[in-house]
Amino acid sequence: MKKIAVILSTGDELTTGKVVDTNSAVIAERLYAVGIQVGAVLKVGDEPDRLIWAFERARELGDIIIGTGGLGPTADDLTTETVANFLGRRMVRDEVVAGSLRKRFEARGIPWTENNLKQALFPEGANIIPNPVGTAPGFRVSVAPGKDLIWLSGVPQEMIAMLDGSVMPWISSTQEKATEIYSGTFKIYGLTESKLDSLVKPMALSAQERLSFRAHFPDLTLRLTVTGSDQEKDAFVKHSEEIRRILGRYIYAERDVTMEECVGHLLLEKKYTLALAESCTGGLISRRITQIPGSSAYYLGGAVTYANEAKINFLGVKPTTLEKYGAVSEATALEMSRGIRERTGASIALSVTGIAGPSGGSVEKPVGTVWMIIAQADRHEARLFQFHGDRERIILGASQSALNWLRTTLLI
Amino acid sequence: MKKIAVILSTGDELTTGKVVDTNSAVIAERLYAVGIQVGAVLKVGDEPDRLIWAFERARELGDIIIGTGGLGPTADDLTTETVANFLGRRMVRDEVVAGSLRKRFEARGIPWTENNLKQALFPEGANIIPNPVGTAPGFRVSVAPGKDLIWLSGVPQEMIAMLDGSVMPWISSTQEKATEIYSGTFKIYGLTESKLDSLVKPMALSAQERLSFRAHFPDLTLRLTVTGSDQEKDAFVKHSEEIRRILGRYIYAERDVTMEECVGHLLLEKKYTLALAESCTGGLISRRITQIPGSSAYYLGGAVTYANEAKINFLGVKPTTLEKYGAVSEATALEMSRGIRERTGASIALSVTGIAGPSGGSVEKPVGTVWMIIAQADRHEARLFQFHGDRERIILGASQSALNWLRTTLLI
Repeated sequence: MKKIAVILSTGDELTTGKVVDTNSAVIAERLYAVGIQVGAVLKVGDEPDRLIWAFERARELGDIIIGTGGLGPTADDLTTETVANFLGRRMVRDEVVAGSLRKRFEARGIPWTENNLKQALFPEGANIIPNPVGTAPGFRVSVAPGKDLIWLSGVPQEMIAMLDGSVMPWISSTQEKATEIYSGTFKIYGLTESKLDSLVKPMALSAQERLSFRAHFPDLTLRLTVTGSDQEKDAFVKHSEEIRRILGRYIYAERDVTMEECVGHLLLEKKYTLALAESCTGGLISRRITQIPGSSAYYLGGAVTYANEAKINFLGVKPTTLEKYGAVSEATALEMSRGIRERTGASIALSVTGIAGPSGGSVEKPVGTVWMIIAQADRHEARLFQFHGDRERIILGASQSALNWLRTTLLI
Repeated sequence: MKKIAVILSTGDELTTGKVVDTNSAVIAERLYAVGIQVGAVLKVGDEPDRLIWAFERARELGDIIIGTGGLGPTADDLTTETVANFLGRRMVRDEVVAGSLRKRFEARGIPWTENNLKQALFPEGANIIPNPVGTAPGFRVSVAPGKDLIWLSGVPQEMIAMLDGSVMPWISSTQEKATEIYSGTFKIYGLTESKLDSLVKPMALSAQERLSFRAHFPDLTLRLTVTGSDQEKDAFVKHSEEIRRILGRYIYAERDVTMEECVGHLLLEKKYTLALAESCTGGLISRRITQIPGSSAYYLGGAVTYANEAKINFLGVKPTTLEKYGAVSEATALEMSRGIRERTGASIALSVTGIAGPSGGSVEKPVGTVWMIIAQADRHEARLFQFHGDRERIILGASQSALNWLRTTLLI
């Protein structure tokens, strides 16, 4: 009998449309990858009656119930208490959790308030699920014979850490003995999701072999999962090779890594330094590069030259170049890249200038037109991009293309 | 009696995590705006049994059920048929819809296939909901006394056109006059979620008066919602004033606006220009400022000076200052702010230099130490901050504090 899962997402922000729920999609993808069918996703607000209704419906359909949200210390964080009421159990304080909460607050110099102890209360008999990146631990509790309820923090990064660190390993351990899971991640650049789908669709996969996707623009991840006995490993290797053959250069990494991490690794490996001159991306490329711990080893700095005067004063772009060709031009991009490279002494420099919109476009240079230059000591290369969508999508797309171009340049 | 809605989203792509469902958030927001509470959101795959399960659960809880997906012409588009089975009704062809489908295909030169007629079949007695931007019309059908099921296309732009063009006007026409929703948003800076909770907890609220929180670090939102008759407006006004009294200066806005939008509005209003010199925040403040459409009207540009050489060459920080006081010091921050202001001519300049970690800290200057300066033509002010948490939290916290300090400075 194959297990069925039900995912619960809770919070008034979901039932009032203030926030788009991404947690349930992440959980669904992980479960799908290991061959567990998601029977339903339920979302309800922060109300005990509604939560109980959802627990009942989830238990009726699912063998594994995974929920998120409402574990915080505030009055509207009602989940744990409501689970205890639903099961007719009392709440007990876990002294280990209580102690580590206190220590955590002390270490950070945050004043301790007693309501934080709420996060150390769990339904009696629950197994605690550690939260390696936040204050609120989760828990797992049996809700009927063979049926378990697992509850995680609603903060996406905490939820993912708990899911991958504790929940998925536990789920694997409860799977039938013969079952092994082989899983491979392919990070994709330069394809839309539907194009990716149509490219891999012709692959002949058995019921134990699955392809799953995760799209969170500009990030696109393809995962191959093969479950079964030891012999299935051959099938996994064969299909991985098939994916490499079909997708070729669209695969930029075969592990769960971001584009900026790839660029960082390559810069470190080559002992190169980087400098950036950004206009339309407004500092996002710099932000993505510096989000990586240790980036100060290879990133020297950047200029965000939004106004023409900044391009002139910071980077030495000639006023005549701006007049003759405009701010969004190959000539301006070239002078920006030279300016930043000379002023920082970086081994590699990237410049970006374009029109993010919504205004500022013309027939000749529509919104989404972006020029980029990569300059090194002895050479430079120019590229013209045309991005589509709204302002945010153009900025995100341009930052991804810039990082990918840096990556491919560093690979040579 | 207040009406409760249930939203259904269907499709295998939702239960396998391939796609994040945005339709349900759009529908929830529209319903919330007209005072209809969403009791639950249910998502199931394209399977008749699961659809029926969802119809049953939705009918049990909701007076209005709004569903999306599965109205297309292909074999796995099963919704309409399954609704008919669920209600024990036969399917009848609507000849007006059939005719307009044929015309639509002819007009576009798309070959007509008989399976397209599937989109002209509806459960007997259903009201057809026109689809102004796609082929598949939706329908509304009574599923129990006083309970209606409304089904729309799952393609977001079609769904929105049908929702705004037909569904919301119909819902408004069925509303009782007496029920009103009063809702106020308070954006919070400088409090943790638990501290905020302990401050507002003493407020005496009735069952019709609710406080809800949304925390997405560094963003923190408090919402007061009061439902009831016209007279409840007084209660809403009274509680709003109470919140203002309790939270005072921690409230930075009373509408759903980001800190960077507040700063942008103030810069526009004062006709000021802004420049930034960032070190540890790595370009994030610049990124946040430029995320706002129209920011080029007030944002001149910035420097991300990660390396000491960049601080010297870009901003004219003196090598002796760096040697004597270090990169993370009031003296360096001051020279950074002067450098950026002079080079851009901005009316207001902000500099940020600190230690984001994980490495680079010392006993004297632990990880999280951040100096900031705000410089204007005739004056400057320095502040020392101590942030806590991991690298990302320190960077996010520093960007929020920087923007808030700009905001309060601009208010004077």
